[in-house]
Amino acid sequence: MNMLTKPYDVVDPKLDLVLERDVDVAPELVWKAWTIPEHLVHWFTPAPWTTPFCEIDLRPGGAFTTVMRSPGGEEFPATCCYLEVVPNRKLVWTNALAPGYRPLDKVTSCPGTDLIYTAILTLAPVATPAGMGTRYTARVLHKDEGGRQAMAEMGFLEGWGTALDQLIAFVKKKS
Amino acid sequence: MNMLTKPYDVVDPKLDLVLERDVDVAPELVWKAWTIPEHLVHWFTPAPWTTPFCEIDLRPGGAFTTVMRSPGGEEFPATCCYLEVVPNRKLVWTNALAPGYRPLDKVTSCPGTDLIYTAILTLAPVATPAGMGTRYTARVLHKDEGGRQAMAEMGFLEGWGTALDQLIAFVKKKS
Repeated sequence: MNMLTKPYDVVDPKLDLVLERDVDVAPELVWKAWTIPEHLVHWFTPAPWTTPFCEIDLRPGGAFTTVMRSPGGEEFPATCCYLEVVPNRKLVWTNALAPGYRPLDKVTSCPGTDLIYTAILTLAPVATPAGMGTRYTARVLHKDEGGRQAMAEMGFLEGWGTALDQLIAFVKKKS
Repeated sequence: MNMLTKPYDVVDPKLDLVLERDVDVAPELVWKAWTIPEHLVHWFTPAPWTTPFCEIDLRPGGAFTTVMRSPGGEEFPATCCYLEVVPNRKLVWTNALAPGYRPLDKVTSCPGTDLIYTAILTLAPVATPAGMGTRYTARVLHKDEGGRQAMAEMGFLEGWGTALDQLIAFVKKKS
């Protein structure tokens, strides 16, 4: 019945992967890059992978659908369910539930694996040498240490880091 | 990017169980009965089962914890994760995620089973012969037909219906 931090809000180093970086792009632009399909497709997958399709129903329970394409042309469709949508500040989604919050057995949204995860993206305004920027924090929660380890070995930090580089380059080019 | 109803918002008769009833208690009182532990313990489990413990962290991602006790004294602790909290109108929770949205393998919140579900409780104001009442709709989403069937055979409709009778009696006695 209060908003105090609970133990389950805190990063668990055995179960979570975290990418945190200060970037010199305002939270509002990072938010758009993550929530407007026509923006997202430009940066979401580290090159030479591409994102030929994205559809977004931006509300709790709504669908977050992407198709990722490998350099060899293999396509990986993925549908997640948004859990929290706080404009310009926080976006939470999971592949443990189908859109509409339906429990799900078969997880298809990690290419080549059945990893179940929840992603919590937080954007906090920070001053940077170039002006107003964003403390960008992506926390990915797993159900067990094996899941965390498998995602780490898939290159979570490198992959999400490269995607963030691409996001920043896209936003700067666009504005 | 819109709030239109999507296919996944609509009841799927193969996968969902639904209890809908108009009751002559205002939505605000039904809401309190569901969200204040000291209220909930009085009606949550059909007698002669009891609810000796309840703890509620009422926010998206927060924990909804109960302990149910059988007539023989066996206790069944259960922890769910709230997904949506719209005061007096809508409450959504699941046992497919642990509090803080962490994906979960082992489900313990259905006594004697491992049923995974999401519950969507909606409260709409309606006029009743006795004054302002509530259209009470409890929709429980399953991942497959087997899960729906198992919960139906556990007596979902009777159990949730009896609990609702107890909720109404509690609210009327209290006010």
